Amino acid sequence: MSILVVGSVAFDSIRTPHGTVDRCLGGAATHFALAASFFTQVRVIGVVGEDFTAQHEQVFRAHNIDTRGIEHAPGKSFHWTGEYRENLNEAQTLRTDLNVFQSFQPKIPDAYRDSEYLFLANIDPALQLQVRRQMPRVKMVCGDTMNYWITGHREKLLQTLREMDALLINDGEAKLLAGENNLVQAAKRIMQMGPKTLIVKHGEYGATAFFGKASFPAGVKNHFFRAPALPLAEVVDPTGAGDSFAGGFFGYLASQPSLTPAVFKRAMFYGGVMGSFAVERFGTERLENVTREEIDERFAMFRELSHLDVE
Amino acid sequence: MSILVVGSVAFDSIRTPHGTVDRCLGGAATHFALAASFFTQVRVIGVVGEDFTAQHEQVFRAHNIDTRGIEHAPGKSFHWTGEYRENLNEAQTLRTDLNVFQSFQPKIPDAYRDSEYLFLANIDPALQLQVRRQMPRVKMVCGDTMNYWITGHREKLLQTLREMDALLINDGEAKLLAGENNLVQAAKRIMQMGPKTLIVKHGEYGATAFFGKASFPAGVKNHFFRAPALPLAEVVDPTGAGDSFAGGFFGYLASQPSLTPAVFKRAMFYGGVMGSFAVERFGTERLENVTREEIDERFAMFRELSHLDVE
Repeated sequence: MSILVVGSVAFDSIRTPHGTVDRCLGGAATHFALAASFFTQVRVIGVVGEDFTAQHEQVFRAHNIDTRGIEHAPGKSFHWTGEYRENLNEAQTLRTDLNVFQSFQPKIPDAYRDSEYLFLANIDPALQLQVRRQMPRVKMVCGDTMNYWITGHREKLLQTLREMDALLINDGEAKLLAGENNLVQAAKRIMQMGPKTLIVKHGEYGATAFFGKASFPAGVKNHFFRAPALPLAEVVDPTGAGDSFAGGFFGYLASQPSLTPAVFKRAMFYGGVMGSFAVERFGTERLENVTREEIDERFAMFRELSHLDVE
Repeated sequence: MSILVVGSVAFDSIRTPHGTVDRCLGGAATHFALAASFFTQVRVIGVVGEDFTAQHEQVFRAHNIDTRGIEHAPGKSFHWTGEYRENLNEAQTLRTDLNVFQSFQPKIPDAYRDSEYLFLANIDPALQLQVRRQMPRVKMVCGDTMNYWITGHREKLLQTLREMDALLINDGEAKLLAGENNLVQAAKRIMQMGPKTLIVKHGEYGATAFFGKASFPAGVKNHFFRAPALPLAEVVDPTGAGDSFAGGFFGYLASQPSLTPAVFKRAMFYGGVMGSFAVERFGTERLENVTREEIDERFAMFRELSHLDVE
């Protein structure tokens, strides 16, 4: 089933201990769409400038991603400049040029209206809500957010959260949003804000899913699930790891006939798998070239990494 | 099979957001011994002062722990005073009174000489080495250490590491010891220092085992294993969590007829289980009262928490 994703399609200039790249294709919607495309049909809503060429669009098309919702506006695309020092878990933003994103008003093409899954990537919660309200009949809405919106646009974010089925954020963001340092308590508070299910990403330590009573109509035996991350000897560029996790997670969910606890758990593993590929190269390079066979091999590796019954 | 453990038997005065306790029974060897006692016979080497009463000794005896190696010296027992603020992962040491521990010279009773497993808890590496050399024929030596010894007594620590089969330390300590921020690279360097196997504890995120080529004579398919930690809604007192992990891990290993990769993996889970109990109450209270039945139930919970095939 189709996923509609709204978010940034951008260019990134990145410096990490492994090197630098200038203006490579990036953006949350881009990483998400590529990762999800291995599992299901993805449709993108975003805005780009005149610097976004047919060659860039071809990266999406080669993965059967529908780009009819990517608006072309006069001016330059959103451009993020950032740096990772020794601690690869944390990006230092050096510069954010919103450019055409500044006045972005998401428009949903008619051809996207029958999408059954909606992913609200990390953008202004006002825009997330605007898109969410135009898609009232989707089967599931999952979203992301970040510190900037949590502290500076809290009211609007809380309004948007009330209309999300699942929230997928990182550890520090979850604690900040809840105003609570204990993760289990933080999860409880967040699930009172709207999302029935919360997925918290712990970077190199994996991710935890919290299932509320409303997560599954038939109930769930356990209220937590922990998925591992692959210990990596080399992280070239962490940019987009979280969005790739989201793409693997939501893409797998959308590909399944029903949303059972078992499906959610496998989705968490696929999230970790796609995140682990994303960081192996700068920008979208690895996600552009990974094969479904490699994805399945790595899924098996994640299982071996964490399961007692595999020697 | 019997484990000999050398380390501190102490009193702790602790403040956490959940309250304070004054001079409760503590020390690395104490937490380790209690946690391991659910799996195998444990023998303790340490030193205590005149404030260590028959009632304190009874805590060990009630768990069939051999205390003949606990020396009684004139003066006071080792006393640690510490505090945990909002971030329960990190203790602030307010005061360390070594007292009788200052001039501790470990002596191994003859009745302990046939111990097959040796655990060198977190003490001066010179003392660890002294004990290790007196037990040349043990089947397996596992040890712990901390920042203080890594930075201030590096040469002696490196000498001790050469004679350890497995090292069990936390994430920050592993990176500090290796001088390397990437965990996989850090593990490689540490395994070149002596230990064939490295277990890195990640606090609330679980633990990772790194298996070298020498870890298992018959080889191992995977070189990593990740065990989860239980997401806890309330952590009353983190003191001794790492030592309790070590006790569950090493106690389970020592109880098994052979050391296969599958046994190591289950041992990691038992480590997490014992650590999760330890933090539920101040000091040793929870480990004193936990039952084998509760341990097995929680082991099943850890499996459900992380395994794809459990609904």
